[in-house]
Formats: sequence, C-alpha cells, structure tokens
Amino acid sequence: MSKKVVTFGEIMMRLTPPENQRFIQTDEFNVIYGGGEANVAVSCANYGLDAYFVTKLPENPFGQAALNEVRRYGVKTDYIARGGKRLGKYFCESGASQRSSNVIYDRAHSAIAEANSDDFNWDEIFSEAEWYHVTGITPALSEKMSEVTIESVKKAQEYDVTVSCDLNFRSKLWSQEEAKRVMSEVMEYVDVCIANEEDAEMTFGIESGSDIESGDINIEGYKDVAQQLIDRFDVDMVGSHLRVSHNASVNDWVVVLYDGEEFVKSTEYRVHIVDRVGGGDSFAGALIYSQLSGKDLQETVEFGAAASALKQSIPGDFNHMTLEEVEAIAEGPASGRVKR
Amino acid sequence: MSKKVVTFGEIMMRLTPPENQRFIQTDEFNVIYGGGEANVAVSCANYGLDAYFVTKLPENPFGQAALNEVRRYGVKTDYIARGGKRLGKYFCESGASQRSSNVIYDRAHSAIAEANSDDFNWDEIFSEAEWYHVTGITPALSEKMSEVTIESVKKAQEYDVTVSCDLNFRSKLWSQEEAKRVMSEVMEYVDVCIANEEDAEMTFGIESGSDIESGDINIEGYKDVAQQLIDRFDVDMVGSHLRVSHNASVNDWVVVLYDGEEFVKSTEYRVHIVDRVGGGDSFAGALIYSQLSGKDLQETVEFGAAASALKQSIPGDFNHMTLEEVEAIAEGPASGRVKR
Amino acid sequence: MSKKVVTFGEIMMRLTPPENQRFIQTDEFNVIYGGGEANVAVSCANYGLDAYFVTKLPENPFGQAALNEVRRYGVKTDYIARGGKRLGKYFCESGASQRSSNVIYDRAHSAIAEANSDDFNWDEIFSEAEWYHVTGITPALSEKMSEVTIESVKKAQEYDVTVSCDLNFRSKLWSQEEAKRVMSEVMEYVDVCIANEEDAEMTFGIESGSDIESGDINIEGYKDVAQQLIDRFDVDMVGSHLRVSHNASVNDWVVVLYDGEEFVKSTEYRVHIVDRVGGGDSFAGALIYSQLSGKDLQETVEFGAAASALKQSIPGDFNHMTLEEVEAIAEGPASGRVKR
Amino acid sequence: MSKKVVTFGEIMMRLTPPENQRFIQTDEFNVIYGGGEANVAVSCANYGLDAYFVTKLPENPFGQAALNEVRRYGVKTDYIARGGKRLGKYFCESGASQRSSNVIYDRAHSAIAEANSDDFNWDEIFSEAEWYHVTGITPALSEKMSEVTIESVKKAQEYDVTVSCDLNFRSKLWSQEEAKRVMSEVMEYVDVCIANEEDAEMTFGIESGSDIESGDINIEGYKDVAQQLIDRFDVDMVGSHLRVSHNASVNDWVVVLYDGEEFVKSTEYRVHIVDRVGGGDSFAGALIYSQLSGKDLQETVEFGAAASALKQSIPGDFNHMTLEEVEAIAEGPASGRVKR
Amino acid sequence: MSKKVVTFGEIMMRLTPPENQRFIQTDEFNVIYGGGEANVAVSCANYGLDAYFVTKLPENPFGQAALNEVRRYGVKTDYIARGGKRLGKYFCESGASQRSSNVIYDRAHSAIAEANSDDFNWDEIFSEAEWYHVTGITPALSEKMSEVTIESVKKAQEYDVTVSCDLNFRSKLWSQEEAKRVMSEVMEYVDVCIANEEDAEMTFGIESGSDIESGDINIEGYKDVAQQLIDRFDVDMVGSHLRVSHNASVNDWVVVLYDGEEFVKSTEYRVHIVDRVGGGDSFAGALIYSQLSGKDLQETVEFGAAASALKQSIPGDFNHMTLEEVEAIAEGPASGRVKR
Amino acid sequence: MSKKVVTFGEIMMRLTPPENQRFIQTDEFNVIYGGGEANVAVSCANYGLDAYFVTKLPENPFGQAALNEVRRYGVKTDYIARGGKRLGKYFCESGASQRSSNVIYDRAHSAIAEANSDDFNWDEIFSEAEWYHVTGITPALSEKMSEVTIESVKKAQEYDVTVSCDLNFRSKLWSQEEAKRVMSEVMEYVDVCIANEEDAEMTFGIESGSDIESGDINIEGYKDVAQQLIDRFDVDMVGSHLRVSHNASVNDWVVVLYDGEEFVKSTEYRVHIVDRVGGGDSFAGALIYSQLSGKDLQETVEFGAAASALKQSIPGDFNHMTLEEVEAIAEGPASGRVKR
Repeated sequence: MSKKVVTFGEIMMRLTPPENQRFIQTDEFNVIYGGGEANVAVSCANYGLDAYFVTKLPENPFGQAALNEVRRYGVKTDYIARGGKRLGKYFCESGASQRSSNVIYDRAHSAIAEANSDDFNWDEIFSEAEWYHVTGITPALSEKMSEVTIESVKKAQEYDVTVSCDLNFRSKLWSQEEAKRVMSEVMEYVDVCIANEEDAEMTFGIESGSDIESGDINIEGYKDVAQQLIDRFDVDMVGSHLRVSHNASVNDWVVVLYDGEEFVKSTEYRVHIVDRVGGGDSFAGALIYSQLSGKDLQETVEFGAAASALKQSIPGDFNHMTLEEVEAIAEGPASGRVKR
Repeated sequence: MSKKVVTFGEIMMRLTPPENQRFIQTDEFNVIYGGGEANVAVSCANYGLDAYFVTKLPENPFGQAALNEVRRYGVKTDYIARGGKRLGKYFCESGASQRSSNVIYDRAHSAIAEANSDDFNWDEIFSEAEWYHVTGITPALSEKMSEVTIESVKKAQEYDVTVSCDLNFRSKLWSQEEAKRVMSEVMEYVDVCIANEEDAEMTFGIESGSDIESGDINIEGYKDVAQQLIDRFDVDMVGSHLRVSHNASVNDWVVVLYDGEEFVKSTEYRVHIVDRVGGGDSFAGALIYSQLSGKDLQETVEFGAAASALKQSIPGDFNHMTLEEVEAIAEGPASGRVKR
Repeated sequence: MSKKVVTFGEIMMRLTPPENQRFIQTDEFNVIYGGGEANVAVSCANYGLDAYFVTKLPENPFGQAALNEVRRYGVKTDYIARGGKRLGKYFCESGASQRSSNVIYDRAHSAIAEANSDDFNWDEIFSEAEWYHVTGITPALSEKMSEVTIESVKKAQEYDVTVSCDLNFRSKLWSQEEAKRVMSEVMEYVDVCIANEEDAEMTFGIESGSDIESGDINIEGYKDVAQQLIDRFDVDMVGSHLRVSHNASVNDWVVVLYDGEEFVKSTEYRVHIVDRVGGGDSFAGALIYSQLSGKDLQETVEFGAAASALKQSIPGDFNHMTLEEVEAIAEGPASGRVKR
Repeated sequence: MSKKVVTFGEIMMRLTPPENQRFIQTDEFNVIYGGGEANVAVSCANYGLDAYFVTKLPENPFGQAALNEVRRYGVKTDYIARGGKRLGKYFCESGASQRSSNVIYDRAHSAIAEANSDDFNWDEIFSEAEWYHVTGITPALSEKMSEVTIESVKKAQEYDVTVSCDLNFRSKLWSQEEAKRVMSEVMEYVDVCIANEEDAEMTFGIESGSDIESGDINIEGYKDVAQQLIDRFDVDMVGSHLRVSHNASVNDWVVVLYDGEEFVKSTEYRVHIVDRVGGGDSFAGALIYSQLSGKDLQETVEFGAAASALKQSIPGDFNHMTLEEVEAIAEGPASGRVKR
Repeated sequence: MSKKVVTFGEIMMRLTPPENQRFIQTDEFNVIYGGGEANVAVSCANYGLDAYFVTKLPENPFGQAALNEVRRYGVKTDYIARGGKRLGKYFCESGASQRSSNVIYDRAHSAIAEANSDDFNWDEIFSEAEWYHVTGITPALSEKMSEVTIESVKKAQEYDVTVSCDLNFRSKLWSQEEAKRVMSEVMEYVDVCIANEEDAEMTFGIESGSDIESGDINIEGYKDVAQQLIDRFDVDMVGSHLRVSHNASVNDWVVVLYDGEEFVKSTEYRVHIVDRVGGGDSFAGALIYSQLSGKDLQETVEFGAAASALKQSIPGDFNHMTLEEVEAIAEGPASGRVKR
Repeated sequence: MSKKVVTFGEIMMRLTPPENQRFIQTDEFNVIYGGGEANVAVSCANYGLDAYFVTKLPENPFGQAALNEVRRYGVKTDYIARGGKRLGKYFCESGASQRSSNVIYDRAHSAIAEANSDDFNWDEIFSEAEWYHVTGITPALSEKMSEVTIESVKKAQEYDVTVSCDLNFRSKLWSQEEAKRVMSEVMEYVDVCIANEEDAEMTFGIESGSDIESGDINIEGYKDVAQQLIDRFDVDMVGSHLRVSHNASVNDWVVVLYDGEEFVKSTEYRVHIVDRVGGGDSFAGALIYSQLSGKDLQETVEFGAAASALKQSIPGDFNHMTLEEVEAIAEGPASGRVKR
C-alpha cells in the first residue's frame, strides 16, 4: 500500500548510558538517532506506507548519520534540507523501579530550530500526499518553526491532505501561553488530534479532573477531554494513550479513540518496559496506518495499542515491528512463547 | 556418582543480540554453543554423572569450539564424530513484555544432519552405560538421522540401558506425519517419555482439551495426556513441564510426573526470565539424575522444577547450577537473599 | 550544610560479571570500588555533608583507584592511611528470579585488616566532627581492627561526636562469640544502632520470633528487637530496614525507627532490583543526614526508605542520588514518569 | 553527479570476533553486512553516483538487515529480488603480526546462489545506466549464477553500458577449469578488467613470473599481465592493486592502470591495517567514479590508491570516506594530523 | 611537594567511537571529560603539586561529572564556578594509517564561554600560588573570556605568580586577527611560552620556513621561532613539542626548550599512538613540574618528552602516569618489557 | 600422537583492562585463566599430545573455572587436587609504545602455594609419562612447593621421564639466594633447560656480558650462557628465546637451542604485539612437541620460533594455534594474507 505520508520535525542524536547506569557514573553512551516525527515516519514505513520525513540537518557526519538512520529503515529523505550549525542532542537515562527516567536536552541552535520557510518546498512535498503528521514539539523549537509549522498545515489543507497533530506539550521548550497561541492556530487545520490529558491541559487548559498519579487509568475522564477538543477545534477524531506507571519498570497501557460519536478503548496491556521512549509515536504511526488501510475505530485502537505496547519492549526510539507482528498481537493473545 | 549417561543430537552455534535488541537493529551477537541433548549432558555432568554427548562436528574452528564448550563443562567427548560441511546455527532474539522470543534456524546441511550410521559405534557407546537420552529433534534433522536414532534406541535396549525421550516436536524440521511415523517406532524402545501437551498433540494427535494460552496451568488435563502415552507406548513414566507465559518476561512454571499410578506435581515457580532456552532440557537432565540417584517421584519433580526454574535465570543454553545449589532450592524456600 | 561526618572501614574492589552471568561462565568483570562505610560516606557527601572516609589502602594502583573513587564523589580522603600488602576484593554475582545473588570474599590480608592503631590520628579525625559511623564489619576484619574500632568509638565519645553503628554481622569473618564480645564493648559508646533482625540475633542473641523467609514483613516483631537493644545498651535510637524477597528480582522494602517511645515505619516500596548491594548503607547515610538536618522521626524513615529503595535501581555500591531526587520521592508519589 | 551505476552480486552477513580474538576463543561477534559488489556500490554512492545494488535476499530479518545496510549508506535497492532460503554468511578472523586473517565461508544455498534469471529485469535495470560492475565471485556461486551473469553482461552491452569486471578468483567456490570457461565468456563483454596477478593466473593461466611473497611489489611484472589480458580479451583498460604484506599488521599498497598505451602507477602507501577486507573493492569503486567524472589515468590511480588505502583504516567492509576526504589524500600529503 | 598551581580553561565532554570506527558507522561512544587546561592540572596533581583547575560548569549531571573527573585524579575544584546553560562537548574520531583523527566541536554557548568576571575571585585563587597556566583556547571562547583571561594574567603578575601560556591556536574558534590582538596583550604577562610552529605562525605571523609535512623534525627552524617569541614578548623561556606524523598510527616526537641562551632538545621518541590527544598538555604539565622542582633545562625536556610520549599510549585526555613512571623513562632506556 | 606429557604449577585468574587502559582508569577487566605451566600444557594439547596439568585448586567457582578452561582446550585434569583457600590472581596492564606492560600479583596464600606433598600421587602421575615440564616459578611459591617440586623431578627421573625446566626467575617471589639453593637441586634431575640470559644470571649468577637493553639480539653471548649451564648441570639441551623490545608494541624475536655440540638459531621475527604474555611458554610447549615428534635441532627452533611469535598475536595466555597453522609458518613465508 504505497500511500504517501509526510511527517515534519526534529531528529536528534540520543545518548543513553548502558544497563541502567546514571549519567554521573557512566563512561559509555549508546547512540541512536530519533525524535517524535521521525519515529512516526519509521512506523509508517514498517507498515508499507510511502513515508517521507522532512527536517533540516547539518552538513556533518552526525547530520548524515541521522539521515542515514531513517533511510536505513525505509523512510524517504528526498525533502530533507541540509545546512545549519548542529544536530540537536538529548541524553536519556533509563529509570528503574522507583527511579524515573531522566531526559536532558541539548537541542538549542539545531539546524531545524534555525531553519527558514525557504528550506522546504511544501508544494512539492504535499504533491500526491495523503497524510501529514506534525506535533507540538516542532513549533516549540523556535519562532521560525512556529511560522513554518503553521504554513505547512495550511498548505496541507490546500492539497486535501489529512492532517494529524500530536499536541506533545514540552515545558522545557516553550510556555503554556506561547503553546496556546500557536497551537490554536495549528489546530484550525488539523483533522486528527492526538493528546494525552496533560497535553490538553497544558496547551489549552482543558481539564478532566483525573489524577494521572492515582494508579487507575481514567478512561471516562478522557472522553470528556476528547469532547472538548472536538468542540473547540472541530477535529474529526481524538486519540490518546493512557499510561499508569506502577513504577519505572512496569506500566499499564491502553489507547482510546473518539470520533464525536463512538468512544472506543483498546485491550489494556501490562508492559514490562525495556525502553519507553517512542511509545506515543508508535500509537500515532499505527493510527495513521489503520486509518489509511480502512480499519474501523475498534480495529484502530487494537492495532495502535499492540504497536505501542510492543515498542516499549525494544531499545531505542524506533518501533522495529513488522505489520504482521503487530497484527498477530492486535488480533490475538500475547503469551510471549518462543517461535521455533 | 559416576554412572554413564549418553545423549545424542545436534549442538549448534547460537547467536543472540545483546540487551533485548531485535535482529534488524543489532550489530553484535553473543555467541554460545548449545542444543537440547548437549544441554541435558551438561546438566548431568554438573550433578556428577559420567555424561557423554554424541554428535558429529565439522573439522573447523566452530566444530572444535562446540566440542570444547561441552568439554569445558565436564561432558565427555570421546564418541563425537568429526567431518561434514558445517556446524548448524541458530539465531535467538530475546523477547520482552508482549514481544515473544524469536528463533531463526540456519541448521540445514549440518554435519550431524548428514551423518551416517558409520559415524557412531553404538556397541562401544552403550558399553557400561545406564541411561540414554534422545529427543524428537534428532530424527527430524534428516532421513538418515531418523534411521540412526531408531538404530540407537534399539541398540540401547539390547544393552539394557534406560531410554528417555523428549518428544520436542519441531514444525520447522518435519511434518506431523513424518514425526508420527518415526517417533512411533522410536517410542517402542523408550522407558521414560518427556512431552508437553503441544508435543503430544503434534506428534501423536494426543489431546487433553487444555488451552495453553488461557493463563492457567492445566494440571489435570496433562494427567490425561500422560495416561494416553503410557497406554499407547507402554512407557514406565511420563514427565512434563507446564508453562504459563503471562508475558515474555514473567512466566509460571511447574513440572509433573506420572508412572501410571501416582501423578505428582512440583512446587509452582513464578519465573522472571533471563533466558528461557534450555528450561525443558534442564528438567530432563534433573529427571535423569534424580532417577539414577534413587529419588522418589515427588523428590524428582521438586528437583526437576528447581533445576529448570533456576536455568531460566542464567544466560545461554546450559544450566550452570551445581547439585548443592539446586537441592537448596528444591528442598527449601527460595528468597533470593545474598549469600555473604 | 557542611557538618563533618566520619566513617571508618574497608573499601574493596568489587568484581561483577555483566548481565546476570554466573562466575563459571563469564570472561568479563565490571569493576567498582565499594564497601559499607565508604558507601555511607558517599551518601553523606551527596547530601552536602562534609564526609570523611577513614581506612588504610596499599600504595599501588588499586589502592589509589579506591581512594580516587570516593574522592570522585566528593568524599574527603585526608585521613586515609597508605601502606600494607593488598586491597581486599570481593566477587559479586547478580542473582535473578529464584537464583540468589552470591558474594565470594577475597579480603584476607588487606591493608586495613592488618592496620595498626598508629595508622589513625583519632584526635585530628574527630576534631570538629559531629557524627561517627562504624559497622560490625570493621572490627570483624582482625583482632587489631577490633581494638582500633573500640579505641575509635571511645575517642569519639570524648569528642562528643554522635556515634552510629550498623551491626552488620558477617559469619564469614568471625564467630558469634567473638562478635558478641567485641560488639558489646563497641555498643557502650553507640548512640544510634542500626540492625536488622538477623544481625541482632546473630550478634547478641536477641530474637523476635519472626521468620524472615515467610514473605510478610514482621514490623511488630522488630519493635521488640529494638526495645531489647535499647534496654541492653542504652542507645538513643534503633533503626532497621526490613526486606521481603519475593525472589531475587522483586523485593518489598520498608524502614523503621524506634527511639524508646515512638516507633515509626516508612512507606513500603516494591523494589524491582537492579543492584541490591548498598541498600542498607543508603539507609544509614540517609539517617545520618536526616538527624543532622533536623528531620523528625517520620521524616527520617521516609527519607531513609526513599534513599535506600532508589539505591537498588542503580548499578554499583554507591547511591548516586542527589538530595533533591531523594526528597522528591520521599515526599510524593513515585510514578516513574520521564522528566522532560 | 547523478550517473547511474549498477553492481550485481552477493551481500553476506559477516561475523568478526572483537579485538584480534581467534574463532576458538571468542564469545562475541561483531556483525556487519558486506560483499564485493555491495562494497563497490557503497563507494559509488559515497562519491555521489546513483548506485544500484542488484541481488536476491531472503524474506527474513537478516535479508532485510542486509538491504537496510546498503540503503543506509545511500545505495538504491529498487532492483533487489526477495525470496529464497537463507542469507550467505562469512566469518572473518582478523590476523595480526605473523598470523594471517582467516575467512570461513558459510554461503552455500544462499538466496542469490539459488536465484533464477526471472528474478532480475535487466531491461529495467540497465535503462539509463552508464556503468555495470560485476566480479568473478557472482558466477562462481552456482551454475545458475554463471548463466545470469553472462546474460547480464550481454544485456549491458546492448544498452551501451560500460562493463567492469574484477576477476576475484575464489578457489573455495569453483575450480580453475570452471572459472576459465565461464569468465572467458564474461570477458567478451567487459570494457574494464580489474585483476591482480593471482586472479589472472588462476582464472586464465596468465603469468608474470613475479613472486607475490617476495616482499617487493612487482610493478613491471604486472604490466605484462595487463598486456596479456588486453591482448586476449580486447578490454580497454586493466587495473590492479598490488599488496606486499610485511605481516598481517603492516602492508605496502599501490595501484596501477594500463590502457594498452600508458601504464601508470600510484603513490605507494604503507598501510597500518585496521581491516583489510574491501581494499580491492574500494579501488574498483574509485576507478568507476574517476572514469565517470573525467579523471585521467594518473588521477584515477591516485584517487583509487588513496581510497583503497584509507578503506583499510576503517572497520567493516564498506569504505566510509567522502569524496572530499579521499581527494584530500589523493592530492596531497597524508600526515595523520588531527583536524581541529 | 605541595606547591600551588592554577590552570584556567574549559573542560568538555569528549565522545569517541570505539575501535577506530568512524562517526558515520558507530552506535556507541566512549565518554571522558577533558580539555587542555584540565589535562595540565591532572598532570601536575599526578606529580604531587597542589593543582587547582578553574572553570565554570553547569548545575547538571554532566557539569558535575566533569568536576568529579578532575577531582577523582586529585585536582582541587574549590574555585570552580557553577551555573550556565551547558557543558561543551567534542567528538573525536581516532584516525589510523592514512586516515587522520577528526575532531568536531559542539562547544558553543558553554557555561565557561558565557561566564563573567564575577564568576572568579582571582585574589583568592592566586593567594599563595606559584604558577598559573593558561592557553590560547580560553580567550578564544568568547569576548568575555578574552577579557577574563587578560584580567587573570594581570592579577597573576600582581601576585608574583609565574605565568605559562600555550598558544594553542584554534581556527575554529577565532580568526588570526582576533587571536593576534588578544594574545599580544596576554603575552605581556607571560613568563613561559609554549608554542609549536603552527601556533606561532597563525597567532603572531612568526615563521621559521620549516615544512611540518616534510617528514623531518625541523629542530633548527624552531630555535628561530623561539628567539622571535623571546624578542617580541620578553618571555623567559619558550618550549615546544615537534611531531612528525609518518601516519596516524606512528609519529616521531621530540620536545625543545630555549631560554634565550641555551637551546636544548630531548631524546626523540618513535610513538605508536593509542590516543594522541593531550600530548602537548602533558608536556606543559611536565614543564611546570620540572621548573618548580628545580630541574635544569636538559632534565626538563627529558622529563617533558618522556611524559608526553607516554601520554600517547593511554586512552583519554589525561596523562595517567606517576612521577616515578615518567622518571624511569626520562632517565633510562624504554624497552617495553613487562615488569613482574 | 598420544604421548603423555605432564606439567606442574600454578594457574591464576588474570584480569586485564580492555583496550590499553591503565589500572587507574578502567572499570572493566577481561578475565582469563593462565600461568606458565598451564600454558605449556595447552600448547601440547593443541599439537595432539596427551597433556596433563597438575595443580591444586580451591573448591569454589573460580577454582572450577580455571580447571574448566584448561579442560576446554583439551588438557587432562585427572591429577588436579582440590581444596585450599583461594585461587591466585594477577592483574596485567597491556603496555604500548614507550609504556611497558605492568603485572601486579595477588597470588599469596593460593591453594597451590599452600599445597602439600600429599596432594599429588606422583607414581600415578608419571605412570606411562614421557615428558615432565616444570619451571622456576612453582618452587618459588612457598617452601612446601620447593620440596614438592624437588620430590617431583626426582620421581620423574625414577620413571625415566624426560624433565624440562624453564628457570623463569621471579624476583617478587623469592630471593636470588633461595632460587640458587633450590634450583640447583632441581637442576640435578633436569634434561632440558630453558633459560633466558636474565634467568641464568639471577638464578645462578651465570653471565654472558650481553646487554639486553641494547637493541641487538645477543646470539653469541647466549651460546656462552648455554655452555655454562651444560657444564654446571650436565643437561642435554639448553634453549632460549631472545627478545629485543623496540618498544612495547614492536619486538624482534628469535629462539636458539644448544645441545653442547650444535648451536642453532631460528628465523628472526618482527612481532607486532597483541599480547606478549605466554611467548616463552609457547616456545617450551613447541620444544616438547618437536622433541617428542622427532624433529631435529633446526626444525625444533623453527617450529618453536613460529609458535611463540604467533602466540603474541593472540589475546590471553594460551597459544590457540593448531599444529598445521604453526607448521605453515615454520616452514614457509608468513605474509599475512587472508585465506579465502
């Protein structure tokens, strides 16, 4: 199914100490390349979609390595601009038990944060495209990126491309005020909104009264959030993953979807976490595939929940699962037996 | 206790990506050497038996390394034939959480699969032997191996050697029809049969009506399977391990034994899995030791369950536990305290 | 808060096979340097205290590396004597599931075990000090160390330094008789005693009737032990951690404190263990900090429980948590969410 | 410079023990994917050519990983057929000092060895292509591959594509008789022949009387070999690399080129070897680029020698050098200073 | 010998791919912390001097880890300011054979580059100090650092502290014009200048007519450079290391010193390079120690050459050699025999 | 050729920091098991001899691992006594360039050093043996070992077993006086003596006037040493390896043999060192094989020199070369070409 899907954002170098070490004690980093929108593109490519990742990367070995890494996993890199000063980086310390994972960003002044409208030919990019995915991270990178993101969703609408947006509020990148101003404009052009409760509250002040620390997944509270998002921005569909962290090693995980009429929830998974980064992105990628391949709402959340639960058993940002592997879990029992 | 025990089968090079990585992303493999019958031999050597492993290995560094590895752990290699084209290999991806472990075989055309009757002097091998262990994997390797396996069990009977057989059905190696034809003949000479429900059903069509995916260990159903095996093949004893995979990281584990009169089950263990390969082989090795050392039925399943639960906490195929360590768990509480 | 704290004991080279391997199969050791009293000093330094570790180390690269490692993490090394034959070593095999962790000591004839009274200038060491921490391990190293330890606590009392002592009975180092004789004398000068039930029973024959294998934390039984310690040795305060090992991978953990009047217990943590070594030492370090910073009894156990639960998520002996990180857990819910 | 270049052959999984270990002692393999023709394609892609690698790969994670690896480095994979049983493997032990490197093949029954003419659409492949590179390894894989290789060079000629062939005689794959028969037919369609002395002698019995063990590079002897190849097969150009192995750690390296009139030789490099595999392939890739970009004969050998000397300083099969980096060495002194 | 020595500059996180890998292919970095002036401080501490390193570090785990690393090796950190946005980083690819090492800086906006005069209390810092070492890198970081550096050398002169300066021109940090302007002012307060030919030429336009690529160490040419530096800036002493890179794996190395009267050169070493970073810094540290301990000129270059040659056999930036080890080489033959 | 060869001595755990790191900076050790006499036994087993290694090992996992490691490589362990307190250890830091390798022993109180005459049944051991190899290290371990060693060579003579002895003087284990006293008695029973110049001088005061630091191999001087050893102790043959260390990375290596009449020297090898430990032991093992298989003097030194040069290209103590591989180098040119 070679439908063209476009994602736009930042890909960073991620540096992780091995074996649960803390930053303060390590003398080694595992290095991978990843970021929300690139992660979504890789998921789409895995499922057979024609996935394009759009960004700007510096003309140095690390910019090239980031490009190579998405290309390696089948993502098209034709629209990636080159230039700028540096590749953004982030350091990720894997938590365990009572100790949370810890992320330290070192992404200021990255090539994409300092990119211009001139770096991207949206007409070419959206030609024959069917889906465009963006997140609340990209416009938060800089004022220029706010403008370029808004420009991109407008242009996508012109080309009749379905637009999905994961709110992904990042308090280290911008204030709630800035987020609200910019994302309100972005949302005018969005068809499918992905947002967890915290994103909705921090970005738009939409509350459900649920307490994400309480240990119970607040399904009903979320329906209310989704309704408010639909009411306010006239989107077609709102999706979310809900996570209960028993501790940093074991989480419960469920995904939900609401189209204004039907509210569906997936099977709930107890996840023994290998790497939780990219869980939400895996849901977004799975949602895009599901919708483009004609799955109904319930099938979409089952596929999305299986995909995103499975991701968390894989080291790195990317969801290295094939379509067949995800469907086997989505459609049946997951007993963890060896295949031989 | 220097009683002579013989096992016969294939030892392969096993290649495993480190730290839960998938095949598609790794650039490193941990390499060990293992295989069902070799694993059983190592268990027997650990408990002080005079264990001989019989196979055929190529005259190259990998054949030598496989031989060295069993020798390292005290297994006698006097009867290993040398020659042939290649050592069989298998790739093993460790699952986690909802993601199952995955095994890819690359074992066709191995030295043992292409070995002949001439490669093994069974008269010498069974001289003074007390126990012979074989599995359903060895005859599945090739038609020649089917013949050699049958020849070996016949010869063992001639020498009054106790014969145990783990059915171990492998659908990637042969069809149910072939398995039934060959294993029916093998079973004529078997005294102790090891078989889980799936093995019994796939090899002989023996069903218990249990559902191995259901999350409950079907103890009662298994007694029925064991009775049918005794009725059909006149074996003295049938044993099995029963596993409930909550997910790829946490399993419940119990072993059972039936001698036609008494049906015993072991303590049930909740196993946090480090490496599940070799769990069943550890049970077989423990059963052989228990029977040769005069343990009763209940002691045998307790020793067998402790041994095979402990194996799953150790990386690799082999069960690196001493007799004393297994007995300490088999006979008492296992609280995981540090010994110091 | 630059209050001077002194700890005295042995720091060893610790050698650990990677990734749950057993000693018998590994060809690699991770090397760190640690030991009960050094671990306590590092915790104190992390919380901003002026922590001094006193020991004797050989004049070779390993003695220097041990010194460097505590210095690296902010511990003062001014009073460390140099000389002697060797650095003590210990090998530590990480358990998992039903398989316990295993420690093999190779610490005989270490520089500290063969040190003399002349090696330490206690007048200088206790000048302006506020707290002195010692354990039952140091006097168990040799007769000389028994004498030096007693000399040190006497001198500490002269200087009005608060003395804490973790009984830490080690059956591989001395007999119950020797322990009772020496520790009874040490206890005359102790203000704060840390002891789990096993320590109290093995050292002084104090029993509570609880069964540490039973799977339930015996809080009430412990109060009785603490009362007996207060009655017999007139200490101001008795603390303990209580651990229930479901298996080597998952434990429950709680800490308690009794001052003769009030008996407080902390929040109970279910700990998914990365490295259990140093759990008790982290409690001791946290207790010292809490008392020196004016926390009340309940705050002390909450801070101590959080610190020691968190330690067990970190590889190595040292508790690499900052004051702020421990307080965040001690004061609130620990959901294991990523901070970004 | 987006000129289309096509290479055709086998890509294998390569397994290498780390740090000069021998096969017999290692418990770890570094895994990369490589093979002569894939290596040439990667070099071409690095220099900006539109490089396509044609092969057949199994539908499993290892086939996919091999495809991903060339795609990662910019090679086009549009014409790669999928299917067949297995990916070929080879084991490579890095020599040092007097100990030679050692390669053990495990490539029989690979997907490409068992591929058919139907798997490749040569009309599509050669459409708009400018260069086609093949080696003596591909036809040696099987009789079918002999046929397909001959079919491919014929078809290339039809499309006016320049054909280069590296004789690369492999005694473990076929006999001299078979090689001579098949390669004589292939050579009818070849424009540029790459062959070292041993290849020329083993494949066609062409001798120069030089002794490759003698420690001196036999430049003059090689001119004679090249003349004979031109005379016999009417090729336009013959190139070769000449290596003197002082030992497995230090080699001298020079490349030569002869067009029937001019015989040129490059600067001679003393190479401290990190990984010698792919040295010759790097020369082939550099030669193709040089000729397509209009370099003269002397420039071609300088670029080729620099590229192939540099390759041997990089672990793995691929030559991860950019056009600018190779030209900096080809055009000037190589002093190994740090760039900062 | 507890003489107080102060160095001032930047310490960075250094990220190096293992085993000669290129940036483009690695998925792992070894991480150490280092930088010219910190390296000098570590050398001084190794020789028993009271070495203080002055810098500014961010209040995050990486700033702390950098501080910890110099503290670990005995450097005093009392004057290190804390605050600012980030720790500077640099990536270092180890060359081999014809492939040069490659450094990519990612140090803009570091805490030290954005530090102010207020961050450093020079009166306190130079109280009782005997030597102050600075380099041309620190003032190149920013205009503020230019000012602070000049302020520091002025203040050092007031306190009668000997000032050494390694010109260390970095073209990636500033232009020749800026360097000349600032360093001319710095040099007014310098007593001992360290500069290789390239530094002298790039910073001040001082040429010797030597060709550093030619393969011969230009000793005579360097005396002329040293004379010009003395003439122009009235320094007491000029030192330099001279390196001939046969290739990235093997270099010749010699150090020289000129006090306006006597020109001495050290033994020449053929260095098989493990890690060349920090070679020059090791010479500077050794020179400071030699002068403070009363060595004459010839002894100084011998100690300096031995120290700096030895450094290049050690991975990382720091020179982990003891005083005794350096003297053993400086004073006698270095045959590389095992000491046992 | 199943001739029985016996070696007697200590096997230790060897801990080596990876990649040229110094002890002071490493956080990882590679662990192997080795020691002079065990290394000789492994060489003999590699060449097809029936090699027995005799020692005493503690009943713990490290004693077992040491036994397993020689067993792995084909050495017979039937006569290894078990018991005692600890396994000896040694730390080995790999030098490079001007930095020498450094060994730190931690072998006091090992099981073998504290073994008794009762631990070894020499009658059984020498039954049907043809060769016995011992070194000057074993008697240096303790007075008891001096006695046991003398007892063993006496007994060997009774059984007509050829006795070889490598003097191997270790100044860290005993004084020259003790060595002279004990080794003089041992030498009464020795047939073949292996000794380098330093051994001969330190043990017996035999000097040749050569200077081992001078950079030239002193062949002639050695003949004089050998003559003196023959004259004094009436041995049949004296062998030695001579090493010139250009630096820790590159050595020249030659072996010589003298039978009182003929003095032969091998081809001289320039060795690029991977691991120099075990070079001399490889020569001893090769000498034993050569003499038992009927090689003449010149063939013996060629085989011995090839074996021992090759060893130094392999990490660890053991010489993992097959008979065929050594002979290929001994008999022909060693050009370091890849075999494929």
